[in-house]
Amino acid sequence: MMILLELDAPRTDIEKIKDKIISLGCTPHELPGTRKLGIGITGATNLLKEDDFRVMKSVEDVVRISQKYKLVSREMKKEDTILNISGNEIGGKNLAIIAGPCSVESREQILTIAEILKNQGIKFFRAGAYKPRSSPYAFQGLKEKGLEYLAEVKSQFGLTIITELLNPHNITEVADVADIIQIGARNMQNFALLEEVGKTGKPILLKRGLSATVEDLLMSAEYIAAQNNFNIILCERGIRTFETSTRNTLDLNAVPVVKKHSHLPILVDPSHGIGIGDKVPAMALAGIAAGADGLIIEVHHKPEEALSDGYQSLSPVQFEKLMNKLKQLAPIVERELK
Amino acid sequence: MMILLELDAPRTDIEKIKDKIISLGCTPHELPGTRKLGIGITGATNLLKEDDFRVMKSVEDVVRISQKYKLVSREMKKEDTILNISGNEIGGKNLAIIAGPCSVESREQILTIAEILKNQGIKFFRAGAYKPRSSPYAFQGLKEKGLEYLAEVKSQFGLTIITELLNPHNITEVADVADIIQIGARNMQNFALLEEVGKTGKPILLKRGLSATVEDLLMSAEYIAAQNNFNIILCERGIRTFETSTRNTLDLNAVPVVKKHSHLPILVDPSHGIGIGDKVPAMALAGIAAGADGLIIEVHHKPEEALSDGYQSLSPVQFEKLMNKLKQLAPIVERELK
Amino acid sequence: MMILLELDAPRTDIEKIKDKIISLGCTPHELPGTRKLGIGITGATNLLKEDDFRVMKSVEDVVRISQKYKLVSREMKKEDTILNISGNEIGGKNLAIIAGPCSVESREQILTIAEILKNQGIKFFRAGAYKPRSSPYAFQGLKEKGLEYLAEVKSQFGLTIITELLNPHNITEVADVADIIQIGARNMQNFALLEEVGKTGKPILLKRGLSATVEDLLMSAEYIAAQNNFNIILCERGIRTFETSTRNTLDLNAVPVVKKHSHLPILVDPSHGIGIGDKVPAMALAGIAAGADGLIIEVHHKPEEALSDGYQSLSPVQFEKLMNKLKQLAPIVERELK
Amino acid sequence: MMILLELDAPRTDIEKIKDKIISLGCTPHELPGTRKLGIGITGATNLLKEDDFRVMKSVEDVVRISQKYKLVSREMKKEDTILNISGNEIGGKNLAIIAGPCSVESREQILTIAEILKNQGIKFFRAGAYKPRSSPYAFQGLKEKGLEYLAEVKSQFGLTIITELLNPHNITEVADVADIIQIGARNMQNFALLEEVGKTGKPILLKRGLSATVEDLLMSAEYIAAQNNFNIILCERGIRTFETSTRNTLDLNAVPVVKKHSHLPILVDPSHGIGIGDKVPAMALAGIAAGADGLIIEVHHKPEEALSDGYQSLSPVQFEKLMNKLKQLAPIVERELK
Repeated sequence: MMILLELDAPRTDIEKIKDKIISLGCTPHELPGTRKLGIGITGATNLLKEDDFRVMKSVEDVVRISQKYKLVSREMKKEDTILNISGNEIGGKNLAIIAGPCSVESREQILTIAEILKNQGIKFFRAGAYKPRSSPYAFQGLKEKGLEYLAEVKSQFGLTIITELLNPHNITEVADVADIIQIGARNMQNFALLEEVGKTGKPILLKRGLSATVEDLLMSAEYIAAQNNFNIILCERGIRTFETSTRNTLDLNAVPVVKKHSHLPILVDPSHGIGIGDKVPAMALAGIAAGADGLIIEVHHKPEEALSDGYQSLSPVQFEKLMNKLKQLAPIVERELK
Repeated sequence: MMILLELDAPRTDIEKIKDKIISLGCTPHELPGTRKLGIGITGATNLLKEDDFRVMKSVEDVVRISQKYKLVSREMKKEDTILNISGNEIGGKNLAIIAGPCSVESREQILTIAEILKNQGIKFFRAGAYKPRSSPYAFQGLKEKGLEYLAEVKSQFGLTIITELLNPHNITEVADVADIIQIGARNMQNFALLEEVGKTGKPILLKRGLSATVEDLLMSAEYIAAQNNFNIILCERGIRTFETSTRNTLDLNAVPVVKKHSHLPILVDPSHGIGIGDKVPAMALAGIAAGADGLIIEVHHKPEEALSDGYQSLSPVQFEKLMNKLKQLAPIVERELK
Repeated sequence: MMILLELDAPRTDIEKIKDKIISLGCTPHELPGTRKLGIGITGATNLLKEDDFRVMKSVEDVVRISQKYKLVSREMKKEDTILNISGNEIGGKNLAIIAGPCSVESREQILTIAEILKNQGIKFFRAGAYKPRSSPYAFQGLKEKGLEYLAEVKSQFGLTIITELLNPHNITEVADVADIIQIGARNMQNFALLEEVGKTGKPILLKRGLSATVEDLLMSAEYIAAQNNFNIILCERGIRTFETSTRNTLDLNAVPVVKKHSHLPILVDPSHGIGIGDKVPAMALAGIAAGADGLIIEVHHKPEEALSDGYQSLSPVQFEKLMNKLKQLAPIVERELK
Repeated sequence: MMILLELDAPRTDIEKIKDKIISLGCTPHELPGTRKLGIGITGATNLLKEDDFRVMKSVEDVVRISQKYKLVSREMKKEDTILNISGNEIGGKNLAIIAGPCSVESREQILTIAEILKNQGIKFFRAGAYKPRSSPYAFQGLKEKGLEYLAEVKSQFGLTIITELLNPHNITEVADVADIIQIGARNMQNFALLEEVGKTGKPILLKRGLSATVEDLLMSAEYIAAQNNFNIILCERGIRTFETSTRNTLDLNAVPVVKKHSHLPILVDPSHGIGIGDKVPAMALAGIAAGADGLIIEVHHKPEEALSDGYQSLSPVQFEKLMNKLKQLAPIVERELK
């Protein structure tokens, strides 16, 4: 961290700042300049707050130099984290493809889609039992009933289940069925929820918030890791920008950036990211080309009749076509897709 | 809602769409054009989803015409909603000024600031017992202890208490002390929490999320109203944009927009909005000039020593100066400030 | 500027970086830390480019500390710049109100509005002869004919004329008539145009671009100042964000930020900023409350028939009402409005 | 276009609106509803302005249905536009790869890089003679001298030359040397420049502005097309969002969106888009996977010494590696790269 003062800052102000730095367990270094006076700080600066210094007399600005997250950073762990969930890896050489409908709509619907995907070789199955909807009048999911049907999918087809948790009240039921608990974009900074899912020790799929920077995403992952749970999978699913021709702006730039700064795996969700079914395959291929460890794709056997997100879902035929392309693409980016 | 088809859409597709509209309880109206064919829909279109139609054959686009929120809309209720909380109004002619530190730091700190503000004529006191922090290593609030101190502020000074709820687990303790429960920006779309605070029947201060449109904000308010709780106060506190010279971009445009579309009161929080203490008074005045029903201002007796947000807090002297300006400004916008 | 290296960066890399700094006329300062090695740079760092160092071996990051603009900065000139244009000031104690229609539509229209505004005490008259329109099929202005009519307004009513320049080809004609040349938001980074208007020595009204940070705006002003022309007036007119309920997001936060970093006057254009006529007065008052040096307001005698921007124009009656409010507001922010 | 009125709008207001629609050459269609009254408009609605109706009495909102651009739309021309420039195609089955340094720095530099790229099989060579820089103190390009060196590259190596035009004053010199004239992001809405380059009839590479929607980009292309010049190549190069970990947010979603709405070819510029050299190959592959017709890549033989953008440039070795990957990727997206 660097503190910047006016050149003619009085000695007493400078000493007061240096004392504060020392009292917080760090070391100050004066750096005289021709236009500003700098005080560099070394030590555990991730524990300092810029604003603690901004309010002090003579301080003009405070510039943070090292990152605020630790446990999820590459500096902490050089090699990639690979999760092994029921024998299937996320983060390794093999691309992880998670597929399924937006929400559990009925027992028949969910078993039908699960069977189709199982036959297409899919290992990870997604579907929401609890649905976060911006309107209180929209379909909110089948809830407990939905979890029951997911448990049936699991026992009948041996698929690994990913489903979203919205409310800490439901954590036990969700954790019972889910192999991976999803924290949605709107809850990325629901810190109470992050801590609670962290404590379960289960694999957590953490989606990037609509206005979250990559640093925010990694800070939220740090909340989970701080509970001693390193089974974290990040997911880019589109940010909110001024562009209105797509549902969100899928930010694939985040993929190489996360890969550089963190050891955690990152998936891409093109279904929510671009939000237009016939453009999902293009963005899915682009996500893998950008270096993602896998994809989350909405697949529905009858997109026209889906209770939610039908517009952005692929049909089984479209999905199979995409999988074939992905299998060709994988070796070009040094990956495998079986 | 309007559905747009290619001019040469086959009759069977058109009839299928019209049947679906009718089956959903609405009425279709064909609107032939020279470049597109339109099907207008009338009735309870707020229950329809654009995507239900987007996936149908021959559909090119779906355009929503009327708003998705009802209970909080001006259409539903023409006159302004005025809350009366322990004898003090929010939403009426009188400007509501909520002041206090970012967080409860100690019994001494909170009582000291409360006494100062009480003497300055303030009725509404804010302070966080539970703090949402982007870093798990930052000060998270005094929690239960903080609530205790707030209860003391209430009984000792008769101030109306506003404090934030983060976790449904704490709802009883928080509702016991708080006269107004705050839902923070990061939880604006934590729908589980919105439903639960809605059920308390208590006044709720709902802050706009960093990437929430005004429509999103009103939809989240609708979640609370749908629990039959109309004691809702909205709050503009800055959105996230590309600009980095301020903490957030306080979007005062939202004030006249909300006033037009909703009957709910709206406050402005310039402390978080611009995030720089010496610029807070300018934005506070601007907020009232734009038509806000009041302000939320962070005040700390020793901003330099605050455990959080000291940089954006006003000192009691700065705050008093601002209050004097606000008293002069109030009559110009047909308001009072006693 | 600060360069950050890995702690174990080889000595040869460090020396190479220090040599480069020295060769560029600046001074390096080593700053050892516990997690990184820093090299602080002092001297004319505004001439350095971060990227020159980012590409060097062992460099992890480069952080800029002092600003890149000089001539327009407060550091260069402590006191506010006040322009005196034909006896009327912009930037001083008196608020500068610029009013007029979006575009010159006809001789009759422009003379009618000018007469109304003259009678309302307005000194600065705006109207576009050349109009930048996103569609090539939209009304592009009366061009030379429009300038003629503006010259007539000037001689007949003695109003100070502000009009936009789009194309360097027209610079002589525009400069002949305009007392203040406007550079529009879409041309804020048309550096060729900035240099050319800089050379005229005329007062320039520089509007902030839709995606320009305050720093970008000041850098563009620096282009004009670098031609030895300090007659610059900045203008906040709304930025582009995700919010769609207003035409743009008028960013009033920019006002106190510009006031801190620059000595140049700044106006607010609420007509383009929020883009909805009946909400313009609220944002106009808010702009002055935030500390702006004046306003630019679109006024049309028949908004319903305007060829451009009628929707956001005030009628003379609405404008007069606003002026009365502004006169009451001025003394509260230590200003005058005669 | 749809006009929305209150249900109880007086008949006189409705008739006035319908008369206006008819007077503008279009046809009104009344569409009664239960909450609003709609008036649908058919005909040449691209010539209408929403705001013309917004100001009329009883009008609540105006919703545009069909697009404002015509000549560049898919509706106008179903098949893809393919440009043939000196025997090399852009927009066809073959991927167009444009490579070269950010700017012409010296005769030696430009000939060296051109020779390397020629030997790597590159057909299109880019380099800036005039450089738009946010700081007036930054290197502004070699100007006329730079054009001379580019002419030498052309005659010596037979490369097709792309270079940027900033100022209409230089249009003859630039058009003499350039096979493709580039309009940069900051000039995307410099309509004066768009018209002038349109008139040259030359192929134009039009880069998306930092805050331009896809619709804005297509409207700017329409300006060129309106000069009867259809030799237009679009380019996605990153938009401005809140994310600060990358230089811009390369918006690959724009690729499939443009492909759907327009017949024009679109390239991707990952060098400016992400702005970090070692992440350029990932985004280049992602761009092609998303369906782009080609790439623009900054290549410099000594990135460490480049006078501009060295940080985001690839070395010839990195570029060759990328080309090899691209050759493998091409057939997967039904393309060729020779």
